Amino acid sequence: MRWPDLLGFIAGFLTTFSAWPQLYYSYSTKDVKSIQMQFMVMLMSGLFLWGVYGILLRSLPLIVFNFIGFTLWIPILWVKLSESGS
Amino acid sequence: MRWPDLLGFIAGFLTTFSAWPQLYYSYSTKDVKSIQMQFMVMLMSGLFLWGVYGILLRSLPLIVFNFIGFTLWIPILWVKLSESGS
Repeated sequence: MRWPDLLGFIAGFLTTFSAWPQLYYSYSTKDVKSIQMQFMVMLMSGLFLWGVYGILLRSLPLIVFNFIGFTLWIPILWVKLSESGS
Repeated sequence: MRWPDLLGFIAGFLTTFSAWPQLYYSYSTKDVKSIQMQFMVMLMSGLFLWGVYGILLRSLPLIVFNFIGFTLWIPILWVKLSESGS
């Protein structure tokens, strides 16, 4: 692996898995009050498009981490949608 | 501009400025209770390293948007630090 790719993987690991403590907290407590819906919708749309951009650039870190990140935010969005409906 | 770069700019705009509604809400209400410190620290470290990765790849969308994103999260982290200290 070239070392810029290694840096990309570290960056991708951090941004992507930053969603993990948030997911764990929000899913177990159902507390998503401070998290804005508009933030989540923009973030998730963007993560998806970064993944597509990664495919075009043949950048493995961009592809892998953005699609995982998108997936990790789905349950948090789900909690937000459930809470706002109740 | 090549069209993959255009896609990168749209993706970057969305992920980066997703912080804006969150910043506006959190800064005006001081409500950051649901947002995990660990999430913010990992996200901001990652955004910074993505910016560096962008420099190495000479990818303008990666550079511009990740450094702006990093900057937008500073006031939200600031509110979190103030609240947790009180």
